[in-house]
Amino acid sequence: MKRPSVAVVGLGQIGGSLAAALTRRRLARVTGVTRRAATARRALRMGLVRSVSHRLEDAAGADVVVLATPVRTLLRQLPRLLPILRPEAVLTDVGSTKGVFLDEVRRLRPRVTVVGGHPMAGNEKAGLDGCDADLFEGRPWTLIPAPGAAPARVRMLERLIRGVGARPLRLTAKEHDLAVARISHLPYLLAYALMEQPDRARRVAGPSFRDATRVALSEPGMVLDFLITNPRAIGRAAAELERRLRRWVRMIRRGGAAALKRRMNAARSRRRALSR
Amino acid sequence: MKRPSVAVVGLGQIGGSLAAALTRRRLARVTGVTRRAATARRALRMGLVRSVSHRLEDAAGADVVVLATPVRTLLRQLPRLLPILRPEAVLTDVGSTKGVFLDEVRRLRPRVTVVGGHPMAGNEKAGLDGCDADLFEGRPWTLIPAPGAAPARVRMLERLIRGVGARPLRLTAKEHDLAVARISHLPYLLAYALMEQPDRARRVAGPSFRDATRVALSEPGMVLDFLITNPRAIGRAAAELERRLRRWVRMIRRGGAAALKRRMNAARSRRRALSR
Repeated sequence: MKRPSVAVVGLGQIGGSLAAALTRRRLARVTGVTRRAATARRALRMGLVRSVSHRLEDAAGADVVVLATPVRTLLRQLPRLLPILRPEAVLTDVGSTKGVFLDEVRRLRPRVTVVGGHPMAGNEKAGLDGCDADLFEGRPWTLIPAPGAAPARVRMLERLIRGVGARPLRLTAKEHDLAVARISHLPYLLAYALMEQPDRARRVAGPSFRDATRVALSEPGMVLDFLITNPRAIGRAAAELERRLRRWVRMIRRGGAAALKRRMNAARSRRRALSR
Repeated sequence: MKRPSVAVVGLGQIGGSLAAALTRRRLARVTGVTRRAATARRALRMGLVRSVSHRLEDAAGADVVVLATPVRTLLRQLPRLLPILRPEAVLTDVGSTKGVFLDEVRRLRPRVTVVGGHPMAGNEKAGLDGCDADLFEGRPWTLIPAPGAAPARVRMLERLIRGVGARPLRLTAKEHDLAVARISHLPYLLAYALMEQPDRARRVAGPSFRDATRVALSEPGMVLDFLITNPRAIGRAAAELERRLRRWVRMIRRGGAAALKRRMNAARSRRRALSR
């Protein structure tokens, strides 16, 4: 079988790493689409892509189109691309929230297969500087086929995703957005809220504080993008955490050492069991 | 001037590291006091101490006595030691909370100089396995002289603390306990509360979640010790954080991108400015 052609729109850390993984593992012939001429030249020089373009419309001829731009950007790109894709094409994205994307896809009633996607990968590095062909190794990658998606096309996309080392995971958009609110968006808010504590407290900050606040170093534009497109789930996750926190404080006030220790040991076991 | 004799009671990560730092840098002649024969032998073999004893009372002859046992243990050791110390001795501790210690000292009206102490150092390793002669390098070390402490004795202790690489910091017990509640105890509770989220959410956990929950790996006995001796400040710090978290959620719901970005950038600058 011939290797599929893949157009990656947006060559940031995720788009660049995906292009690198697909190219290095010879899984696809990759075109990169980016408005920035310097990024395009660099991607070519690094051998991440076969060809580059600065026009979004040039992605339309590919078997698979991956929108790897911020959520609010890809929502604008979607209506420009959908009508001009080949009928057998698959369009997917790698945005951090999935509800707004799938709502928009439903509204546009595409004739092609659309699959919302989100690889749980990435770190505080940005752009091609953070590009890594092994970034997805062992990481979960959520996939949410939109109504009307052709099962064979979805399976083809899943094969590519397994090919770059990730574990495809089927969730609904609602399940996904609540899960990321709980394990990603909420830790960001907690890190910011911890950094807002008085100066005097921060003078005695130790390693535990540095770990708990590391994500506050991330590029605010990226964080804003996923916070602002996931308000409902974030509100729910924050309220849940507040209730749990209050229960901890009550137990500490009551001084029940045995019960506290049991609860700590349970949390510790779950932390130990976290996969990479 | 002759090197002072220092008795370190408790050879866990902090006690062991302090003994190592004082011995390696030739700042003091160190005796280790531990009930465990294996720990005593190991400390001798590692060259951390000159001599060892399993009897608390053998610490009484030293110029400086450092209680490096858990807070609830050292509260029991204090009344046994204070009456038998030499009049010119300094007694200090390295407990994670300072209010209960200084309250107990005040109640016992010691004739010797007592200084509450707390080095902001240590990690998830425990015991002599986590021992590191450079553990205190650049770290703040809170010192709180009890009523009646002789200034010259306090200065001598400060010299030793600077000698092991730490930065002595003068706070009141109340200021200290609120500061550690805010920057240490609260991050522990948040890590535990995050680990209590549903299984499904944890399946998609990424690097940000791992950072935010790392301290949940700590030995529960140690954590219990500082949580249970600092209930009031922890309650206050948790309530402050809840208010801040709610303000974040409200801003996200409102969708004010510019205001959110400003708030993120402010938190990011403070995080960048954190000293080691």
